[in-house]
Amino acid sequence: MTFFHNLMTGLNSIPYQLKCVDCGHGYDPGEVPYVCPVCSEEQEPGRALLGVLEVDYDYERLAIEFDRDYLVGCALRGTRRYFPLLPLSDEKFLSPLLIGDTPLMAGERLGTHLGMTDLFMKDDSRNPAGSYKDRASVLVVAKALEMGAETVCTASTGNAATALACVCASQGVDCSVIVPESAPPAKLAQMLVYGAKVFPVRGNYDQAFDLSSEACQRLGWYNRNTAFNPYTIDGKRVAAFEIWEQLGQRAPDSVWIPTGDGVIIAGVAKGFRDLLGLGLIDKMPRMIAVQAAGSAALVNAFESGLKEPEPVEGASSVADSIVVEAPRNGILALREIRESQGWGVSVSDEEILSALALLGRLTGCFVEPSSAAAVAGLLKEREAGRVADDECAVLLLTGTGLKDIAAAQRAVMMPQSIEPNFQALEEVLA
Amino acid sequence: MTFFHNLMTGLNSIPYQLKCVDCGHGYDPGEVPYVCPVCSEEQEPGRALLGVLEVDYDYERLAIEFDRDYLVGCALRGTRRYFPLLPLSDEKFLSPLLIGDTPLMAGERLGTHLGMTDLFMKDDSRNPAGSYKDRASVLVVAKALEMGAETVCTASTGNAATALACVCASQGVDCSVIVPESAPPAKLAQMLVYGAKVFPVRGNYDQAFDLSSEACQRLGWYNRNTAFNPYTIDGKRVAAFEIWEQLGQRAPDSVWIPTGDGVIIAGVAKGFRDLLGLGLIDKMPRMIAVQAAGSAALVNAFESGLKEPEPVEGASSVADSIVVEAPRNGILALREIRESQGWGVSVSDEEILSALALLGRLTGCFVEPSSAAAVAGLLKEREAGRVADDECAVLLLTGTGLKDIAAAQRAVMMPQSIEPNFQALEEVLA
Repeated sequence: MTFFHNLMTGLNSIPYQLKCVDCGHGYDPGEVPYVCPVCSEEQEPGRALLGVLEVDYDYERLAIEFDRDYLVGCALRGTRRYFPLLPLSDEKFLSPLLIGDTPLMAGERLGTHLGMTDLFMKDDSRNPAGSYKDRASVLVVAKALEMGAETVCTASTGNAATALACVCASQGVDCSVIVPESAPPAKLAQMLVYGAKVFPVRGNYDQAFDLSSEACQRLGWYNRNTAFNPYTIDGKRVAAFEIWEQLGQRAPDSVWIPTGDGVIIAGVAKGFRDLLGLGLIDKMPRMIAVQAAGSAALVNAFESGLKEPEPVEGASSVADSIVVEAPRNGILALREIRESQGWGVSVSDEEILSALALLGRLTGCFVEPSSAAAVAGLLKEREAGRVADDECAVLLLTGTGLKDIAAAQRAVMMPQSIEPNFQALEEVLA
Repeated sequence: MTFFHNLMTGLNSIPYQLKCVDCGHGYDPGEVPYVCPVCSEEQEPGRALLGVLEVDYDYERLAIEFDRDYLVGCALRGTRRYFPLLPLSDEKFLSPLLIGDTPLMAGERLGTHLGMTDLFMKDDSRNPAGSYKDRASVLVVAKALEMGAETVCTASTGNAATALACVCASQGVDCSVIVPESAPPAKLAQMLVYGAKVFPVRGNYDQAFDLSSEACQRLGWYNRNTAFNPYTIDGKRVAAFEIWEQLGQRAPDSVWIPTGDGVIIAGVAKGFRDLLGLGLIDKMPRMIAVQAAGSAALVNAFESGLKEPEPVEGASSVADSIVVEAPRNGILALREIRESQGWGVSVSDEEILSALALLGRLTGCFVEPSSAAAVAGLLKEREAGRVADDECAVLLLTGTGLKDIAAAQRAVMMPQSIEPNFQALEEVLA
């Protein structure tokens, strides 16, 4: 971290800059809020974002506020607990909702099934809006309040918009969501209940995305689009701090991450890199990206040794939350996978649905297909002999099964009905 | 508590008996596991249960294990934290899932809307299977394991069976669910993912209920039917301990409870009575039962001064989780409402859906209609001048909105779509 410059002295007590992950240039967050102005000049539509910025901390200064002693005396919960590690000048900007502080559960019965002795599930389906994306939104909305923005906007069809709408509602911040008119009505209903202003457009997601960018520029709205806004990655890193603390202040050997755009994998990796920078762990866990076979741009790029993923035209899978043609955060995600000695694995829809039912049956965790993909990936790699019996592996469960009941129905078999008498019951039990 | 006899000496270290709430007779839990054999002789089908048993503790002995000092040093979370107050011989019988420990959130924006200064929401939608019923199931399954039962059974169409299936999956206990074949496919899918054995019967809920009772008797299955099994009430009282602790070890003035069978209200009231018995609070909060107008047997009975509710034929409401014709725990629930100086209030489906959207917009809590009923009840009583500005009121949010997307869709208005350009956006914003 020799490159560090604290450009914020005098303005903000939090020592950080925004650093371009491509060219390494550092920016004042007050001047450059989104992507690197130099690298993003080459940006082509429909490809991974160029010039993604990450929050670059001065660990020596962070370590003054955050160490093992701080945690001993800290009764705070959720995102608030790690306030000294957030790029935020005041705790008051954080939502009153409990976001994060999700259970890390020992998967004993699943472990037995797999012949593994140190397996855990981080259950982020327990966040308020039901998914990991709440972690990005809590920091983005806090930054919006800190900067005095009155409206936060995103283009989205799914969990990201729902998470944003939820956090905004808890703090009275206006939320505008631009969606293709074909977006799933169930998720639209959830956003609308949270009071988001929803603008369905007669067009596709790319058109909604372009309109959201223009609206943010011209109306002064704060742009939450994933990876484009650096705090989406930074908010998502808090799960790494929690895993570390829940494991008794150690890093696991590997984290198994459902992967679409690559923002969660980048967030988790960044969290562990920060712990490494603070001297709180001495090795990085392997980042394992699990993708659906029908949407495996990152896995393909990893296996081909590419620096940037090639878009997968017509990407599709039952795991809709991780279906993307061009992973927006693909360049950074690939780097994190490689630098952590991790790898990528793709799984079929059949394997995903089968893992969904296996996980439910052995753990009591009911997840959406993207989360089940992580389980399917571990099963596959374990069978291939790439995971040791005593590997400390953490499965990241990113969304609740209640968000996709249709997939759950495909994962199980509905039994035949019987007459309502004991004899009929005995017959089917026999 | 002069009536107390410890019938369990020698067998079990936990000092309790099961006491009939009607005749007051005490029973050895090993001898009489469900309802009072004397009072239940008069039981008629389709009416409130007679002879419901409640767990009767020796507070002097409980106080040895549980006091304010215990909590200071206790790092345990969820149901496990209150183990010294549970009728259980060993903590190992509790599910590894985090059940309970749900957030108590200050409802500042909702409070401002209502002109109230001390309003809270207890968000039990954050339980693993998404509802308050997880609290009953965790204790019932623990008792099943303690007693060596291999299968737990319930008749149900909804959240109760889902909660039971979830907890059973986490501990490898067989779960049998007997349901009418017309049960909602979404909830069936969730149970099946948890690995429950689901037996759909060609008949209605009453027939499923009768068959589940016979199956339990003849096959040695443990019966979890609500209120019939005394630990359903006792498990549900843990939320009262959490509210007390989260408020800084004080009781609120009132708790607003979505009410169907009356088991939650009895559980919460019992929890506060136990705190009173332990000398940890000095007054009971008022129990306010909120029912849907189309299913208001308890509210009607309260207002008519009846001891037992009259069944409401053809009960119906958008709040399906609290629709019952004959509240099974009606006698005890009515007593708890009256003894706590509480009351009942009924709200229309229109008021429920409007409260659902209001709550979402002002708090970021997305709930199912039954939970929104609690909010609607508070709005109504506040308008009627029956709730003071500084009343410390706790709204019990019992289930996630993701369980009933159709209701959410009815609660909001879908906006018109626009062309995907800035001019069109400006026009709708104007």
